[in-house]
Amino acid sequence: MPEKRILDAITSPADLSVLTDEDLAILAQEIRDEIVSTTSRTGGHVASSLGAVELILAAHSLLSCPRDRIVFDVGHQAYAHKLVTGRLKDFSTLRTYGGLSGFPKPDESVYDQHPSGHASDSLSVAYGLAKARDLAGRNEKVVAIIGDAALSGGMAFEALNQIGQSKTPMVIVLNDNEMSISHNVGAMVKHLGALRASQSYRQTRDNMQEIMEASGPFAKALLNLGRNMKDSVKFMALPHATIFEQLGILCTAPIDGHDIGLLREVLSVALATRAPVLVHVVTRKGEGYGPAVRDPETFHGIAPFDVMTGQVRKKPEAAPSYTSVFGGALVREARADSRIVAITAAMTGGTGLAPFSREFPQRFFDEGIAEEHVVGMASGLAKGGRKPVAAVYSTFLQRAVDQMIVDCCLPNLDVVFAIDRAGVVGEDGPTHHGVFDMVYCRMIPNMRMLAPSDEAELVHAVHTALAIGGPVAVRYPRGSAEGVLVPDEANLLPKEAQVLPVGKARVLREGSDVAVLAFGRMAYQALAAADLLADAGIDARVVDMRWVKPLDEEAIKAAAETRLVVTVEEGALVGGVGEGVLAVMARRGWAAPTLTLGIRDAFVGQGTPELLLRDLGLDAEGIAKSIAERLESE
Amino acid sequence: MPEKRILDAITSPADLSVLTDEDLAILAQEIRDEIVSTTSRTGGHVASSLGAVELILAAHSLLSCPRDRIVFDVGHQAYAHKLVTGRLKDFSTLRTYGGLSGFPKPDESVYDQHPSGHASDSLSVAYGLAKARDLAGRNEKVVAIIGDAALSGGMAFEALNQIGQSKTPMVIVLNDNEMSISHNVGAMVKHLGALRASQSYRQTRDNMQEIMEASGPFAKALLNLGRNMKDSVKFMALPHATIFEQLGILCTAPIDGHDIGLLREVLSVALATRAPVLVHVVTRKGEGYGPAVRDPETFHGIAPFDVMTGQVRKKPEAAPSYTSVFGGALVREARADSRIVAITAAMTGGTGLAPFSREFPQRFFDEGIAEEHVVGMASGLAKGGRKPVAAVYSTFLQRAVDQMIVDCCLPNLDVVFAIDRAGVVGEDGPTHHGVFDMVYCRMIPNMRMLAPSDEAELVHAVHTALAIGGPVAVRYPRGSAEGVLVPDEANLLPKEAQVLPVGKARVLREGSDVAVLAFGRMAYQALAAADLLADAGIDARVVDMRWVKPLDEEAIKAAAETRLVVTVEEGALVGGVGEGVLAVMARRGWAAPTLTLGIRDAFVGQGTPELLLRDLGLDAEGIAKSIAERLESE
Repeated sequence: MPEKRILDAITSPADLSVLTDEDLAILAQEIRDEIVSTTSRTGGHVASSLGAVELILAAHSLLSCPRDRIVFDVGHQAYAHKLVTGRLKDFSTLRTYGGLSGFPKPDESVYDQHPSGHASDSLSVAYGLAKARDLAGRNEKVVAIIGDAALSGGMAFEALNQIGQSKTPMVIVLNDNEMSISHNVGAMVKHLGALRASQSYRQTRDNMQEIMEASGPFAKALLNLGRNMKDSVKFMALPHATIFEQLGILCTAPIDGHDIGLLREVLSVALATRAPVLVHVVTRKGEGYGPAVRDPETFHGIAPFDVMTGQVRKKPEAAPSYTSVFGGALVREARADSRIVAITAAMTGGTGLAPFSREFPQRFFDEGIAEEHVVGMASGLAKGGRKPVAAVYSTFLQRAVDQMIVDCCLPNLDVVFAIDRAGVVGEDGPTHHGVFDMVYCRMIPNMRMLAPSDEAELVHAVHTALAIGGPVAVRYPRGSAEGVLVPDEANLLPKEAQVLPVGKARVLREGSDVAVLAFGRMAYQALAAADLLADAGIDARVVDMRWVKPLDEEAIKAAAETRLVVTVEEGALVGGVGEGVLAVMARRGWAAPTLTLGIRDAFVGQGTPELLLRDLGLDAEGIAKSIAERLESE
Repeated sequence: MPEKRILDAITSPADLSVLTDEDLAILAQEIRDEIVSTTSRTGGHVASSLGAVELILAAHSLLSCPRDRIVFDVGHQAYAHKLVTGRLKDFSTLRTYGGLSGFPKPDESVYDQHPSGHASDSLSVAYGLAKARDLAGRNEKVVAIIGDAALSGGMAFEALNQIGQSKTPMVIVLNDNEMSISHNVGAMVKHLGALRASQSYRQTRDNMQEIMEASGPFAKALLNLGRNMKDSVKFMALPHATIFEQLGILCTAPIDGHDIGLLREVLSVALATRAPVLVHVVTRKGEGYGPAVRDPETFHGIAPFDVMTGQVRKKPEAAPSYTSVFGGALVREARADSRIVAITAAMTGGTGLAPFSREFPQRFFDEGIAEEHVVGMASGLAKGGRKPVAAVYSTFLQRAVDQMIVDCCLPNLDVVFAIDRAGVVGEDGPTHHGVFDMVYCRMIPNMRMLAPSDEAELVHAVHTALAIGGPVAVRYPRGSAEGVLVPDEANLLPKEAQVLPVGKARVLREGSDVAVLAFGRMAYQALAAADLLADAGIDARVVDMRWVKPLDEEAIKAAAETRLVVTVEEGALVGGVGEGVLAVMARRGWAAPTLTLGIRDAFVGQGTPELLLRDLGLDAEGIAKSIAERLESE
């Protein structure tokens, strides 16, 4: 280890421009060490960030950011970018409460153009930046860095379709690491595989004659631009047309994404080209750290781990995760009903569908990062007599609101939406919290929605959703459940899943002073709050509402007979189910003081769910305090 | 004209199978006459329906629907489908209140698989149907019919990406009429143009030797399937690869979409193929009706017209449309601020941006049917220092909810969303009403939203949105405005556009018994309702709330001092702004009886806006009646 790291001398990306390729290679290793060291304590997106180190260094060494602009797609590959843009000293706070974000974030740094987090949007954003530059008569460079998996998202195609007919200079760096979170699916991936297999830069470089004979459209374009022949050849397009070239985008041959000299050569030509150019870079997830190379899926997004072994430092968990309970419940349902099929959008493991996919491979569909298509396909599957369960994270289902409305709810089809990661998700922060799903689900006619309060309720909710037909959404949180089921891996499920009566709540605790109508796991916080209130002499009823839609009007009526009706939801208050309770009371003329607790009208930051819920006033103490204060003010 | 039409004898598509090509050609002309005759009275999507007649007849003559399934994309080309599936006798009710829908609608006919209306979803739905069929061990045929313009929608690409790697038999009919509503944009369109130019079936048919030498991958596949050589050659792929083939989808050469014999030949081979096949059909919008061929844009969706001349029967209009006022206002704003740019998604004319596009061609972007990309690009344009105005219909902006959240509101960028067609739109029915935008806009942190009550207010709202910065939505209805501006084409705008105070309402009429808080054009219905109530001795205050978000709390407080607080919104009640008013009252402890009027939790049918608003109780009489009844019940 060097006495003084190069990394410690980098205060801004401008410092990179004076480094040699050899220096940059050393720096790359220092950055890898820093990433592994930090994420072993904080957890994080290790594999993709390790894979993109040389790519990011090469780009920054040629660009003048922040004047030039890099837009990261998804952005979890950007740790090296953070380290060379003045955030080394804070890097140990990565993904912690109040610390550095795990994603690019404009609030955090002038070098971050865009709040990355959702896939496939970088090309549209970069195209907008490029057009804005042209209109303003400026000449800064615009670079989008997008992974192969994100190309399956329709938004990326919409952008390629426009960029391809545009003359606007911009560089698209395709960071092709040959896998998304789990594995890639779709024809685009096959196409990229064919490109990788057919010819690599290193192979062709030595045979100029052959290359010139095969000269693809991009090489010709470069020659037309009057560039030096030697440069042009290094920047060779494939002799056969790529899908990008058919869309009108100049495209390089696949190049080694860990050869920093080569990356700089090719990128410098691309940046000088007066047209949109796609630079096809092949990287390895986890590059430079053995455990991550061997198991890139585990190291995609990982909890704190041991640096030497790569073993995750497991917290002792009292309860299984909601996700795994859902996955187990769905397998059991599917054994009993052969019509049940499961669909997801590149979230097979994340949504707990891996066991389902193994037991019912024919009935399982991972459609890649393509939420719109997933929901549209669910419509067709249902119309064709299947019972599709679309399992998608709450935040990503935002991509398919229109399809839920038009393709599923308007024809009133039997589609179950299993909405994982509903509520605060923790360290991934504002782009990943699932705070809007109750709003966008409840506004849709024909939709019904369950918010199970614990893992046993989740099992019943899944069973109910499949039993009652029509479009039904089931929302449940990320992480460990409430511990009401023994965490026995062989038998996580209740003996008998029940069909819950539609629109009926259940009273968890009787009480006459105030009535707390709780949704989802907030029921447990409400129970704990009731204990605190009891100490203060306040007798609180706690109701697990079970259904977000339809609401249990009898439970609301009974609540309105107490001194205070309280609603507690882990979601946006504006348009949320608390407002729905107010609407029922108003319509029925049930007057009572009310208190709606939930997520105020602001984006939620990052941190452990416990910290965030405390900040939002949605832990037991916060709920009890709000209730006590409100009672005093009456 | 024949004494007895073939059309009159067609009771179901099964009757088509016995007809000769010549009979079908005669039938096609009869159907055209019927379409022109009916739509000249009802209005409708004339040009695309005329273009697809032979295509639909050919498909139905080979299929056994409803066992076999046709999924129409958008569906406004499906009139011929309606006419041969038992709906001839009701065809004169097309697009009228209680009559036949202008789109396929499962509730209306067993032959309609899907509630078409939003572009680009047919491939996902058809793929789901095909997978459902495979899983059930059935063997029906699945056909999707999609226009070239809809291919620019990302959802279609997401589906192609999956279909391309699938072995599931299905036929995609690409109805390539070389234009969308206005004109197509994007690289995909260029690609299709190149295909059309390079080789047509008719040209290649006569040169079998040449074709076989050039044999593309699809011809090879067909040969591998062991089909008759003659058939295979007729079904020839282009010698050079198409974008579809690069995605793994077998693809035909472009064929003449008005040659019914040829269509049947090619489709029969495609239907027999055990793989996904794309049949590239070139049609002419308006085929067979001179005025529609000459002006397909006007005849895309047209009001009642004179059959002989093709001239639209114009209703005398007292007021300009909201759309044209918006377009004029934006041009004026753009003259004063060079940073303003406009973006739309294949709705240049529909959103009133044609004058802008002519005056500021460099600052105008029609990105095709690609709402996600439009909003993402707006994010980049704003970050790059421009002031983008994204003009999209309310119903289609549902496609970009996630992009509004993550790409625009999270970074709090200066993006204006001009939401046209907000509220009930009329004859296009449930897929086209703009009833959810107030819900999905108000739930997003940092978003502000205006609902101008008339065309003068719209001008101020546009000015305000651009002046105050941050993400701001402005919603306004389809059709004629309220007539407060003289309809003088040279000067439709108020002399001086004003910056409206944020979150401040204006009182239109004083009154002390009840207070009506009205949003958007409902203010005028509320004023008329107040007149009716005055006759009944009820003194109603009418407030034009102006802002959906933030709400004017003082106006609400004042309202709560009357006997009844009434909210009136032209949008979904569930999650709507009426609930927002209830939430303010609850939070502030302002108790008063309330009445929230708006669109109940059900999809809204078709009919004139006037009829629909009456049905919804949102005309003056309905509002007055609801208020009077509610006051009685207190």
